[in-house]
Amino acid sequence: MHTPPRGIAMVGFDADDTLWRSQDFFDEAQAQFERIITRYVDLEDVGKRLYQYEARNIAFYGYGVKGMALSMVEAAVDITEARIKAADIKRIIKLAKDLLRHPVEVLGDVREAVAEVAAHYPVVLITKGDLFHQEAKVRESGLSELFRRIEVVSEKDPGTYARLLEEFHVPAARFLMVGNSLRSDIQPVLELGGWGVHVPYHLTWMHESGVQLTQGRERMREIAGIRELASAVRELDALAMQ
Amino acid sequence: MHTPPRGIAMVGFDADDTLWRSQDFFDEAQAQFERIITRYVDLEDVGKRLYQYEARNIAFYGYGVKGMALSMVEAAVDITEARIKAADIKRIIKLAKDLLRHPVEVLGDVREAVAEVAAHYPVVLITKGDLFHQEAKVRESGLSELFRRIEVVSEKDPGTYARLLEEFHVPAARFLMVGNSLRSDIQPVLELGGWGVHVPYHLTWMHESGVQLTQGRERMREIAGIRELASAVRELDALAMQ
Repeated sequence: MHTPPRGIAMVGFDADDTLWRSQDFFDEAQAQFERIITRYVDLEDVGKRLYQYEARNIAFYGYGVKGMALSMVEAAVDITEARIKAADIKRIIKLAKDLLRHPVEVLGDVREAVAEVAAHYPVVLITKGDLFHQEAKVRESGLSELFRRIEVVSEKDPGTYARLLEEFHVPAARFLMVGNSLRSDIQPVLELGGWGVHVPYHLTWMHESGVQLTQGRERMREIAGIRELASAVRELDALAMQ
Repeated sequence: MHTPPRGIAMVGFDADDTLWRSQDFFDEAQAQFERIITRYVDLEDVGKRLYQYEARNIAFYGYGVKGMALSMVEAAVDITEARIKAADIKRIIKLAKDLLRHPVEVLGDVREAVAEVAAHYPVVLITKGDLFHQEAKVRESGLSELFRRIEVVSEKDPGTYARLLEEFHVPAARFLMVGNSLRSDIQPVLELGGWGVHVPYHLTWMHESGVQLTQGRERMREIAGIRELASAVRELDALAMQ
């Protein structure tokens, strides 16, 4: 593949809710958690309470299913004032195991869209969360051979992207990131002077929502679906050439 | 740093129980787990039973504290035949949180030994387990600036080392790995044709024990302590030059 001396030199893809379904399964696990807990307590806001545990525990656990499960167990004990039965604790553990072995469902048109971009640019996958689980999903997706590198990172902030781009020998001004999360995929890359294509997903985890882009908005395009990706990348590449 | 055209071109270091204490804290957490469980059941083999859950669940969770904690909760429910109280479940979760925030205790003479090797070879850190927790420990150890790259991997097998060495552009025959685990640090590297320095630790997790080296024994040295590292590396480098 010939990389021209200007313009976009590498395209990064997010994975969860960009390449394959993820939040749906988390939401379903949370709904089941709520059903277990509301047999003990009559509360409307179990989901919100659970999120408080999850958000606080990110400092201990990072992102991913295992941390979520540990937060669920802890929240279950607290919310039920330690009345929850051991059998229900085991049901919560099973929710996590089911999530971890859930078949990967690649989103429609994704394979074609990634392949089209990969025909013109080196593409890499950059995903946040649990190393073991993310690697398993990449393997199972059947998409791994499209990517030159698979990077699982603990946080998607400007520092992480800067470190990866240094490893890849790609300046931020020539890097474009594709993803569903403004907070994790778009904002940090724009901050570094890079480019972004935002592909919203119909569900957003509370932790990833409520972001207002402050800078670099002109280096970002939002598309309605992944089929529009190639033309959005071409458009931004033309701007990056200038 | 000048790398000669032959001999050892890169030295990799394991982290847990090679650079800093780890198994001690896991063993202590397990001892506390046993104390909780034996208030419900009169069993001698709680530790062995727990290990059966951990070993089986590696396929779901991979390595690390969070998976261990989830296995502990599951084992606790089963071993007590669901009689365990929610408050004790929370104590088990707290064992994990304590492990995750335990201060990093760098082993004696390690900083000097790594620095001495790093003065002559590019050094990298290759550690298995939970991305988030391992990165936190590396940061806290104060050793990170000695390493050119920090790699957290989900499994330390020949395939993983081969992938990393390709990324590093270092042939296996010129790579030397330093670590406490024959299974994870030494055997897979010898299998690829590389070199190893084994630094036994006084504790070994059941999962890492009972390995008999089958090939490449002549490309490995065992040392009694990390102070002997530099001379062992020099000796193997001289052999690798031939």
